[in-house]
Amino acid sequence: MLGVRGLGRCAALPRLRVREALRGQRGPGPVRVQGWVRSVRSQKEVLFLHVNDGSSLENLQVVADPSLEDRDLTFGSAVEVQGTLVKSPHMMQNTELKAETIRVVGPCDPWSFPLKMKKRHPLEYVRQFPHLRCRSNTLGSLLRIRSEATAAIHSFFQDNGYVHIHTPIITSNDCEGAGELFQIETSNEARESAEKAHFFNVPAFLTVSGQLHLEVMAGAFTHVFTFGPTFRAENSQSRRHLAEFYMVEAELSFTESLQDIMQVVEDLFKTATSTVLSKCPHDVELFHKYIAPSQKDRLEQMLKNRFMIISYSEAVEILKQASQTFTFKPEWGCDLQTEHEKYLVKHCGEVPVFVINYPYDLKPFYMRDNEDGPQHTVAAVDLLVPGVGELCGGSLREERLSFLESRLERLGLTDAYQWYLDLRKFGSVPHGGFGMGFERYLQYILGVDNIKDVIPFPRFSHSCLL
Amino acid sequence: MLGVRGLGRCAALPRLRVREALRGQRGPGPVRVQGWVRSVRSQKEVLFLHVNDGSSLENLQVVADPSLEDRDLTFGSAVEVQGTLVKSPHMMQNTELKAETIRVVGPCDPWSFPLKMKKRHPLEYVRQFPHLRCRSNTLGSLLRIRSEATAAIHSFFQDNGYVHIHTPIITSNDCEGAGELFQIETSNEARESAEKAHFFNVPAFLTVSGQLHLEVMAGAFTHVFTFGPTFRAENSQSRRHLAEFYMVEAELSFTESLQDIMQVVEDLFKTATSTVLSKCPHDVELFHKYIAPSQKDRLEQMLKNRFMIISYSEAVEILKQASQTFTFKPEWGCDLQTEHEKYLVKHCGEVPVFVINYPYDLKPFYMRDNEDGPQHTVAAVDLLVPGVGELCGGSLREERLSFLESRLERLGLTDAYQWYLDLRKFGSVPHGGFGMGFERYLQYILGVDNIKDVIPFPRFSHSCLL
Repeated sequence: MLGVRGLGRCAALPRLRVREALRGQRGPGPVRVQGWVRSVRSQKEVLFLHVNDGSSLENLQVVADPSLEDRDLTFGSAVEVQGTLVKSPHMMQNTELKAETIRVVGPCDPWSFPLKMKKRHPLEYVRQFPHLRCRSNTLGSLLRIRSEATAAIHSFFQDNGYVHIHTPIITSNDCEGAGELFQIETSNEARESAEKAHFFNVPAFLTVSGQLHLEVMAGAFTHVFTFGPTFRAENSQSRRHLAEFYMVEAELSFTESLQDIMQVVEDLFKTATSTVLSKCPHDVELFHKYIAPSQKDRLEQMLKNRFMIISYSEAVEILKQASQTFTFKPEWGCDLQTEHEKYLVKHCGEVPVFVINYPYDLKPFYMRDNEDGPQHTVAAVDLLVPGVGELCGGSLREERLSFLESRLERLGLTDAYQWYLDLRKFGSVPHGGFGMGFERYLQYILGVDNIKDVIPFPRFSHSCLL
Repeated sequence: MLGVRGLGRCAALPRLRVREALRGQRGPGPVRVQGWVRSVRSQKEVLFLHVNDGSSLENLQVVADPSLEDRDLTFGSAVEVQGTLVKSPHMMQNTELKAETIRVVGPCDPWSFPLKMKKRHPLEYVRQFPHLRCRSNTLGSLLRIRSEATAAIHSFFQDNGYVHIHTPIITSNDCEGAGELFQIETSNEARESAEKAHFFNVPAFLTVSGQLHLEVMAGAFTHVFTFGPTFRAENSQSRRHLAEFYMVEAELSFTESLQDIMQVVEDLFKTATSTVLSKCPHDVELFHKYIAPSQKDRLEQMLKNRFMIISYSEAVEILKQASQTFTFKPEWGCDLQTEHEKYLVKHCGEVPVFVINYPYDLKPFYMRDNEDGPQHTVAAVDLLVPGVGELCGGSLREERLSFLESRLERLGLTDAYQWYLDLRKFGSVPHGGFGMGFERYLQYILGVDNIKDVIPFPRFSHSCLL
């Protein structure tokens, strides 16, 4: 513990967070502020500090007598300042703290500390320091926004009568076809041999989606949601993929049209975004000013207008008539590629676009057969957004026992999904749902190019730091 | 789709959830209610149905003309009822629905459906049907309470200025010593050989705690929390252990005393519990009436009084003076066993008890050295509660670089924890935190004996259903 400078320490003073201090949420009388030094400016007559405690992007300006100067008072050091809040003579600042004591709680060697005073470090640079980058302005703002967005999403569902379900992370469903899976063993098993019995008796995997488990719950509560980690073992180094990412998923019973699902997606998106914009204006401004200058207007337009809806078949027609040459030739019955999605979004005027009714043969067994033809489709929907591509995917689920049975039969999955068939035997109802990638949502509203910069600790192939 | 009975279907009628209908949240005029039949009583003059949609424990009584009877109208079937809400002539019910049409949306064969009408199935029985048990009254109430408790915990932290952090599920930290770990491989790796390179280049595990990652974040935001899944590969069939369970964890910077940590634990516990009691009175009542009759009074007492605090050394003295004979002889320097914890809680009057300052040699490297002696302790705290045992564990963390360096050196962990040492090099502050097992919390407030009954999809050794 380093020495106390000035008038001595009095632990009984009320503690104030920087955010509260800046809002002038306190009358006269001495207070204590604790945080980290963001800048030091020593003049003949006066010592200026900027102190940040992570409660806001803005720092609290501390004004002190030069006698309180200390050589440990450097960028990154932790301090406790006692003093009185006064009205600031500066235009830009409401309040500043007139210091009586400044105590360096924990020093910080400015030469070895990788962040530097008053420097706007590129996101790529701070990514090298996963244990320190949250102390930069950009990641600080990002993580406050992430926290508020999380809360806003929870509130949206609670306010609309959804029950929150913790769907399992470890699952024995391995045949959903949602990409490469991570498998789990006890660390002993992994080290020894594959002959040993599994911990769970069956092979177990990290979840790729909580959908099937949510469908169980939608059979009791009608409206359910989950918001948790999901996993893909894809060997991708893309700026849009992570091995561990968060997904918001909802499932609605007594729902007979994709329209209802799309309405919830659009409401969720707009409500959460408006909440974030109003709760973290300065944090969002940092991104819209320095990271993605055109994003603010786009977002405001988007909040005012309805999302567009086109069918997959219309989308293919649009692509076929495009003057652009694609690497993958657009063809009914083939997956839309990233280049196609980009074109479609541009074609629609750089707004969010729902694409509905995809080819039956492209989609998983649980999607509801539209019973159309000759171009046979299912009631699936993807939401494409500018810059990010696919943000949400959803569908009506096949609630008709006979349809589901014959589809599972053809896939040889009847035994594995007896429990899922049971849901159609006992009080089955038309239902549907969707999932939204939370990191892609943050990328989109903030205009962040790389998904690794919108999650506290990114995990991707060849990298699992900390 | 089955036929429409009565006056025909009109999709345009406003939909009403059972909870809203029971509260009389709607004036006159026809409405639509959708849900599952919980009972059918056919009399000469009138047909009574009870319909539940999971929005509340209570059912909505539907009164209909016997001509609307249908042989598919059985327990468990899904129905849509249209009609008018009227004041009920019955004392127990405010509102009932006078049906004009009843449509069976999805039938349910009452012979093969494992749940039976008006039967209170034991928790052990419904546990066999993880995909259907949420349709029983008990699990329905449990999952609504779980959802409300989750929301209450989030609100507690948000209201107190904490930033919510999604700590990673996959981690490369393998040496914390918090029990057996699950290791992760891509499913190909697991199938093939151990020689292949790891997906993440390093061995990767499922997290046992978000603490170390929260400490990173507490160095930027001062107050942070996480609430997510954690994992133990322990081969235990106990009624208090799961392989996958949820933990609430918080970390507070500028915190110099265990007292501050305990205050947050106690506030969190009481605020969340009061919210649950007021938001789900009927659901909680089900447990306090049928599952754990004495729990209600105990809980009310607990909310009124301060939790007790004793030191580990005092605890050992109490145990030594006990008339009871223990399987494990109480001895300073040894872990408290379940039998000891039970005795201590009983000795203190069946109230929550904080036990503080545990032997240095029993606890992990990150706990703060109390520098006392000859009985050398660290600033650790466990919260013991009646019936459940350890509910929370926390500590002050060793923020002093030299102390942490020498402890990691002795353990041979210096290289692995360079990043953790960095946190003490750059603006280190006194800090501490705690974790609370969410399932044990639910077990405690509701008096549920087995932890498998308070989580939607329990995972434990030899079992990973669905």
